[in-house]
Amino acid sequence: MRPMEIEKKSFEIIAGELKGKPIDPEYDLLVRRVIHATADFDYADSLCFSEHAMENLLDAIRSGADIVTDTAMAKAGINSRALSKFGGAVDCYIADPEVAEEAKARGTTRSWVAMEKAARLHERPVFAIGNAPTALLSICRMVRAGELEPRFVIGVPVGFVEVVEAKEALMQLPVPYVIARGRKGGSPVAAAIVNAALYQLAEREE
Amino acid sequence: MRPMEIEKKSFEIIAGELKGKPIDPEYDLLVRRVIHATADFDYADSLCFSEHAMENLLDAIRSGADIVTDTAMAKAGINSRALSKFGGAVDCYIADPEVAEEAKARGTTRSWVAMEKAARLHERPVFAIGNAPTALLSICRMVRAGELEPRFVIGVPVGFVEVVEAKEALMQLPVPYVIARGRKGGSPVAAAIVNAALYQLAEREE
Repeated sequence: MRPMEIEKKSFEIIAGELKGKPIDPEYDLLVRRVIHATADFDYADSLCFSEHAMENLLDAIRSGADIVTDTAMAKAGINSRALSKFGGAVDCYIADPEVAEEAKARGTTRSWVAMEKAARLHERPVFAIGNAPTALLSICRMVRAGELEPRFVIGVPVGFVEVVEAKEALMQLPVPYVIARGRKGGSPVAAAIVNAALYQLAEREE
Repeated sequence: MRPMEIEKKSFEIIAGELKGKPIDPEYDLLVRRVIHATADFDYADSLCFSEHAMENLLDAIRSGADIVTDTAMAKAGINSRALSKFGGAVDCYIADPEVAEEAKARGTTRSWVAMEKAARLHERPVFAIGNAPTALLSICRMVRAGELEPRFVIGVPVGFVEVVEAKEALMQLPVPYVIARGRKGGSPVAAAIVNAALYQLAEREE
């Protein structure tokens, strides 16, 4: 089977199994792409959006916003070539030696410090957080302190400690977002959300 | 909360929720690490192992086997520094221009061709397949043809087309494996399995 046929067949199966489930048309393609990346239909229920989130995300990318991820995995999953057509780049500071040193000195996580570094280096980026709740909590703290005004936050960390709390903290802030309620999420989810937006923009241009 | 406390608390929560569920002690740490990476307890039931799989995987890594992944995401998630202590490296050929060209010419997937290239370049590697069923099917074809004798195959692709079939094909072969039954899997699952083995080896050394 050829690559395009596999993808087409996959989305047919997803459509068949979603049948009858009401999904807001604004988010339909995004939700399907997350299910395609995870084979997990829970995301049809768990993904939550701020008002006009899809248009906010598309606008951000179209205007050349950079994307900052919390992990090298999420960075590796994003179609950086498609993003570069709009002028944006994907960056991740988790492996930055300065970040590691500062996190150790302050007794906090590298994820927390990496977000602070990203906020200094990027003008209103899109954050794509697929792993570390402390990355998301760091973003929330900076927003509340008036130090950061992200273009958009993809808040889909995964895990058992502070994950649910970090997602709920984000939803209280005046920031455009998508989150996955509950413990689940992951780097492939974060990457799939960015790629869904990139593919939607590419389709509109065709 | 400090990084080590978060991890400790996470594993305590996982232990609490797994309570009473019988897991083979050989695979217990690996299963918990996959659940930690995904927040998905389905893996307590879906992970299947060939006989003595854990010892086979530990032996492979200890003897310096390279690890070949199907995606850059899985590669990014593996602790390559811990692996290098045993002499192994992590490689991925999906973005190789030669692979792309050959896949196009043959009308097949890059994942299929990337596995053939890996088989030529690596002496009995460990394969860690977290995304593409055609990567796993390519490995199975080479094994059946006597062209490849992998040290170990981590078969956890995710998706809707040929995923279940590829995992079942692997289980028929005389190759040490771990698979996740069904549609689910992913690059974080593949990486977590490799890292679980790396951490187990590190603990034994301490």
